[in-house]
Amino acid sequence: MSSSDIFIGETIGTAILILLGGGVCAAVTLKASKARNAGWLAIAFGWGFAVLTAVYTSAPLSGAHLNPAVTLALTIKDGGWNNLPVYWGGQLLGAMIGATLVWVVYYGQFRAHLTDPEIVGAAEEPAAKAVEAEEPAAGPVLGIFSTGPEIRNAVQNLATEIIGTVVLVLAVLTQGLNDKGNGLGPLGALITALVVVSIGLSLGGPTGYAINPARDLGPRIVHALLPLPNKGGSDWSYAWVPVVGPLIGGAIAAGLYNVAFA
Amino acid sequence: MSSSDIFIGETIGTAILILLGGGVCAAVTLKASKARNAGWLAIAFGWGFAVLTAVYTSAPLSGAHLNPAVTLALTIKDGGWNNLPVYWGGQLLGAMIGATLVWVVYYGQFRAHLTDPEIVGAAEEPAAKAVEAEEPAAGPVLGIFSTGPEIRNAVQNLATEIIGTVVLVLAVLTQGLNDKGNGLGPLGALITALVVVSIGLSLGGPTGYAINPARDLGPRIVHALLPLPNKGGSDWSYAWVPVVGPLIGGAIAAGLYNVAFA
Amino acid sequence: MSSSDIFIGETIGTAILILLGGGVCAAVTLKASKARNAGWLAIAFGWGFAVLTAVYTSAPLSGAHLNPAVTLALTIKDGGWNNLPVYWGGQLLGAMIGATLVWVVYYGQFRAHLTDPEIVGAAEEPAAKAVEAEEPAAGPVLGIFSTGPEIRNAVQNLATEIIGTVVLVLAVLTQGLNDKGNGLGPLGALITALVVVSIGLSLGGPTGYAINPARDLGPRIVHALLPLPNKGGSDWSYAWVPVVGPLIGGAIAAGLYNVAFA
Amino acid sequence: MSSSDIFIGETIGTAILILLGGGVCAAVTLKASKARNAGWLAIAFGWGFAVLTAVYTSAPLSGAHLNPAVTLALTIKDGGWNNLPVYWGGQLLGAMIGATLVWVVYYGQFRAHLTDPEIVGAAEEPAAKAVEAEEPAAGPVLGIFSTGPEIRNAVQNLATEIIGTVVLVLAVLTQGLNDKGNGLGPLGALITALVVVSIGLSLGGPTGYAINPARDLGPRIVHALLPLPNKGGSDWSYAWVPVVGPLIGGAIAAGLYNVAFA
Repeated sequence: MSSSDIFIGETIGTAILILLGGGVCAAVTLKASKARNAGWLAIAFGWGFAVLTAVYTSAPLSGAHLNPAVTLALTIKDGGWNNLPVYWGGQLLGAMIGATLVWVVYYGQFRAHLTDPEIVGAAEEPAAKAVEAEEPAAGPVLGIFSTGPEIRNAVQNLATEIIGTVVLVLAVLTQGLNDKGNGLGPLGALITALVVVSIGLSLGGPTGYAINPARDLGPRIVHALLPLPNKGGSDWSYAWVPVVGPLIGGAIAAGLYNVAFA
Repeated sequence: MSSSDIFIGETIGTAILILLGGGVCAAVTLKASKARNAGWLAIAFGWGFAVLTAVYTSAPLSGAHLNPAVTLALTIKDGGWNNLPVYWGGQLLGAMIGATLVWVVYYGQFRAHLTDPEIVGAAEEPAAKAVEAEEPAAGPVLGIFSTGPEIRNAVQNLATEIIGTVVLVLAVLTQGLNDKGNGLGPLGALITALVVVSIGLSLGGPTGYAINPARDLGPRIVHALLPLPNKGGSDWSYAWVPVVGPLIGGAIAAGLYNVAFA
Repeated sequence: MSSSDIFIGETIGTAILILLGGGVCAAVTLKASKARNAGWLAIAFGWGFAVLTAVYTSAPLSGAHLNPAVTLALTIKDGGWNNLPVYWGGQLLGAMIGATLVWVVYYGQFRAHLTDPEIVGAAEEPAAKAVEAEEPAAGPVLGIFSTGPEIRNAVQNLATEIIGTVVLVLAVLTQGLNDKGNGLGPLGALITALVVVSIGLSLGGPTGYAINPARDLGPRIVHALLPLPNKGGSDWSYAWVPVVGPLIGGAIAAGLYNVAFA
Repeated sequence: MSSSDIFIGETIGTAILILLGGGVCAAVTLKASKARNAGWLAIAFGWGFAVLTAVYTSAPLSGAHLNPAVTLALTIKDGGWNNLPVYWGGQLLGAMIGATLVWVVYYGQFRAHLTDPEIVGAAEEPAAKAVEAEEPAAGPVLGIFSTGPEIRNAVQNLATEIIGTVVLVLAVLTQGLNDKGNGLGPLGALITALVVVSIGLSLGGPTGYAINPARDLGPRIVHALLPLPNKGGSDWSYAWVPVVGPLIGGAIAAGLYNVAFA
């Protein structure tokens, strides 16, 4: 694969991933959305099938990492450190494009939601109490862009993200043992997607399962930049956890793979 | 494939698609349906597995486009403009047959729903206010036939339909790169179906994701023709959006494919 | 395949089908079940994955028809009328065994449900009004065994069962065109299962989608025989619809297949 | 496969199984979890995709039994009794590791849940009435670790676990007939996972479907050992049912397989 194929594939793939993944969060959260309050199962399947669509579409170009932690783990396993910044760059750019597209698709819904006095008022109050600041740490639509913890505890939050990413990356790495030399393929994309559904259902409760630094950081930057009314803060104090946790998890999974499976 | 195989395959396939897709909307909406209020997840899976059933059944005859935007994109990519009207004709006819079959299957439920004073009264009021006309723009069961926006904004609604269709058609076009020469096959049908579930969960909130001109126009015509009591208007002022948007989306996806993937 | 393999395979497969299919109805309906009120999506997935499990397990022995309408359609298409009574016999016996096993699994739940005065009282009243008989037509747990209409209308109910079965059987018949000579296989079993989920979500609202004479008749006989307290009537006046409708649907699908696909 | 590969594969696989399976129970149960009250469908899909992830990851090392009843049945069918204790040991160790990881991931949630006076008080009362002991038989978070019956009846509970396990193990054993010599593979893992979803939806209502002795016993030991506040009892009086029932079910399935399928 050429560097340009990698960069274009990762950009397109991660843009689709975040468009669909952020999209389901918008669909379930925002006023005047037909899917409002569709529940956690919709979130988990929505993110999982976002992975399916994104991996399937971008696999022919770049192999569909779409996740800096996956790229790190595969690079530890197989080498190719020169390509790592190309992958990471495409992933971050794609995530920012995807998050922007979510805003386009749900433009009127964001507006209706963020100008509803009850919603904005309710979101501001507890956050204001919690951090005793004028601007709340996490605005009322930040959850559509980035993850955040239900209980703020750096050690637990980091552990949760590490463990979730270890599960994801182990499944990605053993894919090479399961495919009998046929490469990722449609079935591999489907399995990976259902593994992400599983992680969402089972390990998403405490932090919202970033398990992917680009998935969290790119949309958080877009949240900070977009001209949304009453959008509140982007919770930068938490932003390192869903970046560092998944990278540690990817490295641990690669190490475990090299010890137990290779 | 002969023209008659294409026409018959697309007619049967799109009839099954709309029978099952319109069917899940009827099942979740109408009085005296066992599935009433089953929620958005049921809608999204219902339409996705409608695609699976329809694609799987009609693929051996016509290749199972079942969507004028897909036919347009594949024709831009591969040529064969002579067949385009055959595909489009079969798709529109099939969609009308499918919508009529939904009415047969839910005959008594339509009657019970549309003669319930509370339901009919509630549906008429806000629509009457909105368009200041005697006949409401969108009747109480139109959503079983065709899509409609939660917030009426031609630019946003069009953008939403375009973006949703780009995602769908990109996945359909990359199918040819993913199948290693084995053709669509059952696994390709399954992936396409789950991509449609994904678009429904993630991008369906604002407009109800037509992403297919035949899926929207054919049933809208049937809604206008059927002898349903108190059926209200067919919202023809919106009808161009789910036709034009998906066609633009299909063309954009084909262009993007030719630039990035070919 | 020998006659004894067919009979044993169909008996085991249909027993698993009804154990799991009736089981999900019991799980969602009965008091003191952890899955109570899990909703229509659980019913539709429950029956679909019941088909998956049953087809997958019995396919190596008998080809996994598990449905007299499927056997009829495949016999019209491929011949082999001598085997038809063997298939039908195994299917009916298996369905009765499966329904009995549901009773074993949910023994205490049936007892708790049927001795709850509120549940039994509520179920008796409207039924008594409807048929003006001392024994209600449909007892409070009959829905765990057999299907019944929300609106009793022989023409519509028959049409609904015919149309649902045509969709199912067309997908089963085109399986032979889709598998490229590899036989049913795990992927074919999965597709068939998801087609059944689709029919359940989309066409199940009016009658509860029997689409299989054995699935309805066998458990209805078991409901009539089991020593359940306050079980009420087995609604024999409706019993012909889910037997005749699916057989007509199977024959229509076979005819349509021979005209359009063969 | 070497003994060490078997032991490591079963330990890793069963740890992932219980991390994700126990995880979804924690996600749906505990205070301050984003997935709280996501319902039985989330539980059933959560456990099913836990099986998928665990089987897919560990299959290359150990063949992914992950269940003493499966190992027993495969050993009855194929021999290899020397490896049975290696499989069982890895499974029990892995289950204990997985249950401990659930506690790490949901550390703050366990704390918040178990120190909420309403939750702890409500859980203690009925249990205290039922067994007339000071310490309740089943504490308020035991359901995250191990299964328990809705209606306590040793005969029914045992029958339910036996029947559920027969369905699971029959599907596992016929896998060898369905795969045409290709081994378990990704598709086999997916089918097995959906069979477990099916058993959960259909047969999980009365006892919570252990259908796996290690899945129940390992986490119960961890529940007894963990320093959780107000955790209540580990319900040891029920612990034999989800161990003995599945082993009987596995043996019956192996016998049935040898008679009908071999």
